[in-house]
Amino acid sequence: MTLASTPATLNTLETPCLLLDETRMMRNIERLNGLMASHGVQLRPHLKTPKSIEVARRVMTHPNGPAAVSTLQEAEQFAAAGVTDLLYAVGVSPAKLDRVLALRQRGVDLTVVVDSIEAARAVSTRALAAGADVPALIEIDCDGHRAGVQPGNHEQLLAVARVLHEAGCLRGVMTHAGESYGCRSVEAIADMAEQERWAAVSCAEAIRKAGLPCPVVSVGSTPTAHFARNLDGVTEVRAGVYVFFDLVMAGLGVCSVDDIAATVLTTVIGHQADKGWILVDAGWMAMSRDRGTAKQPVDQLYGLVCDVNGKVYPDLLLAETNQEQGIITLRAGSSATLPDLPLGTKLRIVPNHACATCAQHEAYEVVRPGEPEVVAHWERFRGW
Amino acid sequence: MTLASTPATLNTLETPCLLLDETRMMRNIERLNGLMASHGVQLRPHLKTPKSIEVARRVMTHPNGPAAVSTLQEAEQFAAAGVTDLLYAVGVSPAKLDRVLALRQRGVDLTVVVDSIEAARAVSTRALAAGADVPALIEIDCDGHRAGVQPGNHEQLLAVARVLHEAGCLRGVMTHAGESYGCRSVEAIADMAEQERWAAVSCAEAIRKAGLPCPVVSVGSTPTAHFARNLDGVTEVRAGVYVFFDLVMAGLGVCSVDDIAATVLTTVIGHQADKGWILVDAGWMAMSRDRGTAKQPVDQLYGLVCDVNGKVYPDLLLAETNQEQGIITLRAGSSATLPDLPLGTKLRIVPNHACATCAQHEAYEVVRPGEPEVVAHWERFRGW
Repeated sequence: MTLASTPATLNTLETPCLLLDETRMMRNIERLNGLMASHGVQLRPHLKTPKSIEVARRVMTHPNGPAAVSTLQEAEQFAAAGVTDLLYAVGVSPAKLDRVLALRQRGVDLTVVVDSIEAARAVSTRALAAGADVPALIEIDCDGHRAGVQPGNHEQLLAVARVLHEAGCLRGVMTHAGESYGCRSVEAIADMAEQERWAAVSCAEAIRKAGLPCPVVSVGSTPTAHFARNLDGVTEVRAGVYVFFDLVMAGLGVCSVDDIAATVLTTVIGHQADKGWILVDAGWMAMSRDRGTAKQPVDQLYGLVCDVNGKVYPDLLLAETNQEQGIITLRAGSSATLPDLPLGTKLRIVPNHACATCAQHEAYEVVRPGEPEVVAHWERFRGW
Repeated sequence: MTLASTPATLNTLETPCLLLDETRMMRNIERLNGLMASHGVQLRPHLKTPKSIEVARRVMTHPNGPAAVSTLQEAEQFAAAGVTDLLYAVGVSPAKLDRVLALRQRGVDLTVVVDSIEAARAVSTRALAAGADVPALIEIDCDGHRAGVQPGNHEQLLAVARVLHEAGCLRGVMTHAGESYGCRSVEAIADMAEQERWAAVSCAEAIRKAGLPCPVVSVGSTPTAHFARNLDGVTEVRAGVYVFFDLVMAGLGVCSVDDIAATVLTTVIGHQADKGWILVDAGWMAMSRDRGTAKQPVDQLYGLVCDVNGKVYPDLLLAETNQEQGIITLRAGSSATLPDLPLGTKLRIVPNHACATCAQHEAYEVVRPGEPEVVAHWERFRGW
């Protein structure tokens, strides 16, 4: 789809497509920037959510970074756009080190992540063979969520640190409290933030106590970044989904539904009146199959339904999705009335998980509250 | 990612990426072609699964079609590649009729689908205003799955048919037994195929009895296409996912795991030995969030794990996914042994749902059994 020569509006956009409310996005960015300034800690926004140069320019605190990425494709794209301080925040496999070195040789300060002696050896050996710096952070498993050295296992921590240090690759430690997505209160998130901070800071101290350098102590997730009580000893905080927020974050209490900046514009294509169903052209291809709120106290199915201007209909949900069709119904047990939405009516769907829903689209159609005009068309990229 | 100048192999491909076993694909295509030939019924393959010109050329029975699509983007792409007989198999919204007309004016025999008087009026009005043919099929709801006129509601059926006929737009009926995905036996699928056939044929007969034309009677889903006992009165069968198959289809008994042609190539990036976890670089971005087997008797979580050559490891599953990381573990309760898979090991993951997993990728890396070389790189497209 290409934009017509006349400016697109909410009514002329082809559906389904991805809308980005610029006003909400800027408010979300400024909120976390303010929090980090109050802590006196550098923010390293994670660009895996936006995957867009235009959004990156707005979410980064400086045009050169810092920023985090989840793929080398992201690193290469953002490097081409002038970002020079990047953390590749997923454990690096040895085969990917050629691309890491190529980026570093182009002047990009790209840091990698390892969590084992094997991975540390692969990085060190490659760095020494190339006569190049390949700075690495040691991942710490602060919450049993996925990768990382156990925070109490100083033997392994120091063994990894020494392998890296011998090749001049040791830059610090990083951790991510992914389990914060499963918290049930803001207090629990704040406790998780402290657990995340402590895991990283205590490991950094153990490394320094062993006479090794540990300049970087990197922590973060969107929930913990917003509710950390203190960040003593932390040098940078990473967060990604906060730029758009989503229903999972609203369900956690990290934001309100009115903060959610990315929605899917869709069109009514039919009805099953006897069943109370409204059919739309947003299926799982437009929404993703992500059902992140299924584990939360309030399950939002495939998303909350809003009118074309973004006003939420009470208890109206995208309940089922096929590839290119979705079924809208009232929430089970609701006393709300099914709105009359004739064929051709445009609606917005608020997604469970912004990272997953945005990844289904090639661009953002940028809008502002109360304005029908699309003010910009920002491309996304994908792949690895 | 671009292919290196030397031919890629399974060992040099960047991961994650999408592998397509050409030999299995051709076997799947020939199997259904043979079944349709034995029924004497035309196959209209659904190209929403492959979204690739190269796959389309192999799955269609003739270079010009027929074929079905789920978006106008697919229609435009396949039309540009020479396909002239297309069914846009999702209920059309009035705003999309401009693009439908543009394709028809380019000589593409594109048929649309409606299931209400409102949609039929929109199509008829637009066709008359343009002085153009816009052939339409009336969708029948054979199984309560989503859209369509109820098969017993001849009053509505004939009202829609008359609106279409007055503008010369009535071409026939279509239905899709989406509920066949929930069947628990091959016999249940065969019964569902008969229900699907009966719904379409009985509605076609009602239309003809009213003195209106109904040349096309289109039915199909991958399960019902493979187990229909008879297709009397049906003029064409649609099916899509059979070209690649997947774990959902294997769980239904429509294929075996050894028929599944599309897999995701991934690399081991770490371990949590105490937990029996192997971490890989295939997360939900590479697999999709589709968990279609969750509702089946055997839940395959995010997919079955194979070695690099496609041999399945007993009870080894991709159990969890983050955006760019997956966690492989043994199935709960399994007596199998966790294989020793060092950092850098390449693996293949067999997906739940081929349509959803393939949609996460930009191309197919085409391989053949027992050959390490990538024999072709076929691009996919996306969007609406």
